Amino acid sequence: MRFSMILSLVAVGAGAGLAPAADVRREIQFPDLPNARTLKCDLHMHTVFSDGLVWPTVRVKEAWRQGLDAIAITDHIEYLPHKTDMNIKFNRSYELAEDAAKLMNILLVRGVEITRDTPPGHFNAIFLKDNALLDTKDFYEVFDRAARQQAFITWNHPGWQGLERGKWGEAQTRLFERKQLHAIEICNGDEFYAEAFPWAVERNLAVLGCSDEHEPFRDEIVTPENHRTLTLVFARERTLDGLREAMFAGQTAAWWKNQLFGRDQELAPLFAASVEVSPVRKRTADSLWVEIKNRCEIDIRLECDGKDKPRLIVLPARATSLVVFPAPATGDPEPLNCRVTNFLVGPNRPLNVRLEIPRS
Amino acid sequence: MRFSMILSLVAVGAGAGLAPAADVRREIQFPDLPNARTLKCDLHMHTVFSDGLVWPTVRVKEAWRQGLDAIAITDHIEYLPHKTDMNIKFNRSYELAEDAAKLMNILLVRGVEITRDTPPGHFNAIFLKDNALLDTKDFYEVFDRAARQQAFITWNHPGWQGLERGKWGEAQTRLFERKQLHAIEICNGDEFYAEAFPWAVERNLAVLGCSDEHEPFRDEIVTPENHRTLTLVFARERTLDGLREAMFAGQTAAWWKNQLFGRDQELAPLFAASVEVSPVRKRTADSLWVEIKNRCEIDIRLECDGKDKPRLIVLPARATSLVVFPAPATGDPEPLNCRVTNFLVGPNRPLNVRLEIPRS
Amino acid sequence: MRFSMILSLVAVGAGAGLAPAADVRREIQFPDLPNARTLKCDLHMHTVFSDGLVWPTVRVKEAWRQGLDAIAITDHIEYLPHKTDMNIKFNRSYELAEDAAKLMNILLVRGVEITRDTPPGHFNAIFLKDNALLDTKDFYEVFDRAARQQAFITWNHPGWQGLERGKWGEAQTRLFERKQLHAIEICNGDEFYAEAFPWAVERNLAVLGCSDEHEPFRDEIVTPENHRTLTLVFARERTLDGLREAMFAGQTAAWWKNQLFGRDQELAPLFAASVEVSPVRKRTADSLWVEIKNRCEIDIRLECDGKDKPRLIVLPARATSLVVFPAPATGDPEPLNCRVTNFLVGPNRPLNVRLEIPRS
Amino acid sequence: MRFSMILSLVAVGAGAGLAPAADVRREIQFPDLPNARTLKCDLHMHTVFSDGLVWPTVRVKEAWRQGLDAIAITDHIEYLPHKTDMNIKFNRSYELAEDAAKLMNILLVRGVEITRDTPPGHFNAIFLKDNALLDTKDFYEVFDRAARQQAFITWNHPGWQGLERGKWGEAQTRLFERKQLHAIEICNGDEFYAEAFPWAVERNLAVLGCSDEHEPFRDEIVTPENHRTLTLVFARERTLDGLREAMFAGQTAAWWKNQLFGRDQELAPLFAASVEVSPVRKRTADSLWVEIKNRCEIDIRLECDGKDKPRLIVLPARATSLVVFPAPATGDPEPLNCRVTNFLVGPNRPLNVRLEIPRS
Repeated sequence: MRFSMILSLVAVGAGAGLAPAADVRREIQFPDLPNARTLKCDLHMHTVFSDGLVWPTVRVKEAWRQGLDAIAITDHIEYLPHKTDMNIKFNRSYELAEDAAKLMNILLVRGVEITRDTPPGHFNAIFLKDNALLDTKDFYEVFDRAARQQAFITWNHPGWQGLERGKWGEAQTRLFERKQLHAIEICNGDEFYAEAFPWAVERNLAVLGCSDEHEPFRDEIVTPENHRTLTLVFARERTLDGLREAMFAGQTAAWWKNQLFGRDQELAPLFAASVEVSPVRKRTADSLWVEIKNRCEIDIRLECDGKDKPRLIVLPARATSLVVFPAPATGDPEPLNCRVTNFLVGPNRPLNVRLEIPRS
Repeated sequence: MRFSMILSLVAVGAGAGLAPAADVRREIQFPDLPNARTLKCDLHMHTVFSDGLVWPTVRVKEAWRQGLDAIAITDHIEYLPHKTDMNIKFNRSYELAEDAAKLMNILLVRGVEITRDTPPGHFNAIFLKDNALLDTKDFYEVFDRAARQQAFITWNHPGWQGLERGKWGEAQTRLFERKQLHAIEICNGDEFYAEAFPWAVERNLAVLGCSDEHEPFRDEIVTPENHRTLTLVFARERTLDGLREAMFAGQTAAWWKNQLFGRDQELAPLFAASVEVSPVRKRTADSLWVEIKNRCEIDIRLECDGKDKPRLIVLPARATSLVVFPAPATGDPEPLNCRVTNFLVGPNRPLNVRLEIPRS
Repeated sequence: MRFSMILSLVAVGAGAGLAPAADVRREIQFPDLPNARTLKCDLHMHTVFSDGLVWPTVRVKEAWRQGLDAIAITDHIEYLPHKTDMNIKFNRSYELAEDAAKLMNILLVRGVEITRDTPPGHFNAIFLKDNALLDTKDFYEVFDRAARQQAFITWNHPGWQGLERGKWGEAQTRLFERKQLHAIEICNGDEFYAEAFPWAVERNLAVLGCSDEHEPFRDEIVTPENHRTLTLVFARERTLDGLREAMFAGQTAAWWKNQLFGRDQELAPLFAASVEVSPVRKRTADSLWVEIKNRCEIDIRLECDGKDKPRLIVLPARATSLVVFPAPATGDPEPLNCRVTNFLVGPNRPLNVRLEIPRS
Repeated sequence: MRFSMILSLVAVGAGAGLAPAADVRREIQFPDLPNARTLKCDLHMHTVFSDGLVWPTVRVKEAWRQGLDAIAITDHIEYLPHKTDMNIKFNRSYELAEDAAKLMNILLVRGVEITRDTPPGHFNAIFLKDNALLDTKDFYEVFDRAARQQAFITWNHPGWQGLERGKWGEAQTRLFERKQLHAIEICNGDEFYAEAFPWAVERNLAVLGCSDEHEPFRDEIVTPENHRTLTLVFARERTLDGLREAMFAGQTAAWWKNQLFGRDQELAPLFAASVEVSPVRKRTADSLWVEIKNRCEIDIRLECDGKDKPRLIVLPARATSLVVFPAPATGDPEPLNCRVTNFLVGPNRPLNVRLEIPRS
């Protein structure tokens, strides 16, 4: 390459065509719900404009390539290790990314990270109109200013500086009471904060999973256990308005490693849209065989009622499995009651599902 | 494993769940046409019952895992190197595979390979009722017996013993005139017989791509250039009847490396179903940008009309690309006339397509 | 392909060269010991000559491709589900594989699986001279006949028919006392028999890990958690004699998922040959940084002495990691005492190692 | 992640250990020569301090992870699109990367890109002491200042602005005569400049292959056809002095896609160190079989003398192949004369090698 260009991703060759490493977008497979689009979102990341290591346009291109629908660049207001080398303005990373986002059809959300030691910790304010207005020292004043811009506010990575310091505290209570706290980031990069999930469930706060990435992403082999930590937002439409509305309504799920954390009202239809059971393929005196297709990115783990003990079934991601169930040799097969042990609707509370076997 | 079981592929674990290498089916991505199912078929392969190296059930499981819809096991009648060790019967590989095919919902076609030195060469007869009836020495008598069973007959790998010996010859002419030749296998494993493609086009014979596999398949990383050689059959339904009817009607395409060979009447709608152009994402004085989604397994290569010289565009398989086109700054964008240089509807004859850019 | 040939693996092309899926051998990375070759062996597998699904030559080619040094084909004497279709002779799978083994430089060990319900279970006898002599009904007589051929005898997959049935029993005691039991297969395919490891350790029986494969192998992406279950044999030379001598001396380790099971006397030098610590790369008031290279196929897990609590370190396979240790700012760095928690020299007994940091 | 830290690559976990995507270094496989280390170098790349998109430390970490020995960050002096947002100083990207380079044992070379329209084009000056001294408008004065610092000077990507503009011209001649031109970058990212290779060969200028990367690297699946474009430098030791000395002596080769470009005196011993032929494994009346191990990253292509026509052989990278040669049934096998068609020692001039078959 000779000069850096956003256009380097354009799939036009003059000769022998493109190398296999060409810049392309590959979709993340989570189906839409009957009445909602399933948006794949990462709403927490950094650039060189705070302590990140990439230029803002890189975040858009990564998102496009990795199949995301929406991102927020949330550079710190208060932590600026590059300030000797850079002329920092708090809206600049958003502005620099805007054109690329339009070109690549990525919903770009304006936001910042409010950065304090724990407690109270870090908070993201997104859907802001002017990030710079949040540059003030008084902790609660910052949130008032964010609220005046109708911001969506998330408590980030609660357990980051240790479980003891990262407890739900006075600041959280006060912000919650003032309706200035809308979500908890229960998953951040490689970490999951088990203590924080019930805090969100009890108060009906949205749950978020975010990368909080500072480095460039590498497009390594992506597996159910090894992917960018994301938030699924179930929105009526793929627009900034749709996204915002759905987030304030708590219609989110956090996707972390091979698990989803969310609410029954979204995870149940997501499961139903993801899993398809075939008619019976084979039947013997005490068993029947079906194919089960799993259309999502999770290796779905089921614990199903069995004769003596529960049966464990794994449905690998984006694939069809052959599964055998206990069943009498004749008569319509009974539906199977199962717990989806990696779709969690509360602490240690798996989603309950009923697998119907269609007639052929 | 302690005993060999077809059931080893059943995705049921008693404890920690399945390893990532679990037996699953992954679909091959070629979309259906508006009025036809796109069936992925391999109609030429061998087992230990002739000179292959696997038991017949292996062929079914491979097909299931690799996303195929239909296979024919076509063991040789005349070449039986394992006959000292095996008690060969000509219908046996089909019979042994039948149960697995039913369990895995694979269309299993009965067939054999008629095996002579070139000329005249090897021929497959499929959709037979009794393979054993073809065990006779007289060359034309074999085909009469196949015809009496309404077999579909393919001339296999024409260039196998050299281009000189593999020419269209007297036997081919005679079989064609007697309506006992319905297809040419223009692609066989790693080989493509460029000379044979026009022979098929001129006589409206179906074109086939087959693996002719003798060894076990390995599920290595599959890329557009490196996959099992297959035939796409465009059938009104996914049944043996649907398959057979479509093949006799010539509704096939051969998928070999990163190319498709077929007829305009099937490749044009396949292209249309595979490629989706987005509304304009960006516009400048002389260019516009669109996203183009490619839903099929081929890195599609386009040669599009340009101002001075044709522009080459590559659309990587199962991905979305950003593409820039020359265009004036205003007015509705013109559709783009392109040649799909790896969808071939005749020797050196690329499919012609017209890419429309939708209004947003 | 037109005919099945062992030569299909020969890397000779007539034109554009070989496809990336060409048949090649890739080495398994476990270093040799100072006084022993580290042989990668799978001594338990099946072919169509008992209940396997591949022709014997396939087993040799798989071994070559996958980087093995030695295999034993161990078809059942008593369980012959293909006998209607095949003319079974008990030495035949060995004989058919011999030429390929010579061509591919694989040590081919003659053997069989003695097949009884549990208890007493299945046993492999290898290094036999004539498999057919073991075809007799009397259980102990079989072992006498094996012993007369100086066979090496392994108790296979102890827990296969349930932990209750798979206990060390009278038969095992009797065989052990008669010196007709030399090893226990503590790892078989996906299973590890934790109960059986102490039985081997206490009696100084060799420990084996075997695939017991019946199906064809697929060369999928191989990771530390997902590979063919193997036995490492530490032999003075890479010959059948070297292999045999080392096995009778108990110089083995079982490689199962991301763990090794063996003896201190072999695992300690294997660790030392696999791991290399660099001089100090950086030093601060209380820490130092080193690079650590891991030359083997295991993601090595260390639990090292720390100030307050043990520190966990992971050294990914075939890679170099940067590791930080607590250390004063001056003076020669102290060696670090660690437990290798996935190199097990007894039940729950990790290998103890001492990591020295070389002076630069 | 909560804060950006160079230490995020440290392989220390507090709990379950590291994810498979952990930051590790994997070596590039090109063997050392009998009297030289084979250093893998990328001496042309950019950061946010000119028109690149990453912070300087990212370049070091990428190099470490990808197995490189040396890099030069060569930000433009004259092209500074980020200057509104950044406080640019010409030595700053080097200074910011220095600590990381020391920690990760990467040789970091100070340098800049001298940026003019073609002709004369772009030039890299490396091994500088003070980049800022090159910030002057007079073209030849820049080179005098570089020369006073004993810089190594490369003409970059000759064909970048078209073959016509990128010809060897007056500036090149004048610099060459003043001994201010030491190398030509004949490979740059995806491009190879066939016209430029003879210009280097005729004048004994070193040949370089460089990434000229502006974006972050992605660690995608790396294959012989798809890797970072690099320069191999054959140096007496792995130090900055060793590197510099070897470069001035022209001891380099450019590695681009599946090809090496260099001189006979380095490529011949590199081939010899990479390729190992086994003793004869099998012999028939007119052929013999050997295994050939290829220890380097290139799918080596050989064209060997045959009876009637040359035989083409491909030896896949980092693997062992089985190869059959024509040979009489008895007598010592003759060495085989071959051309290595992708080790090029001049335009269309393959390296000549002689493959000896050792006695067993």
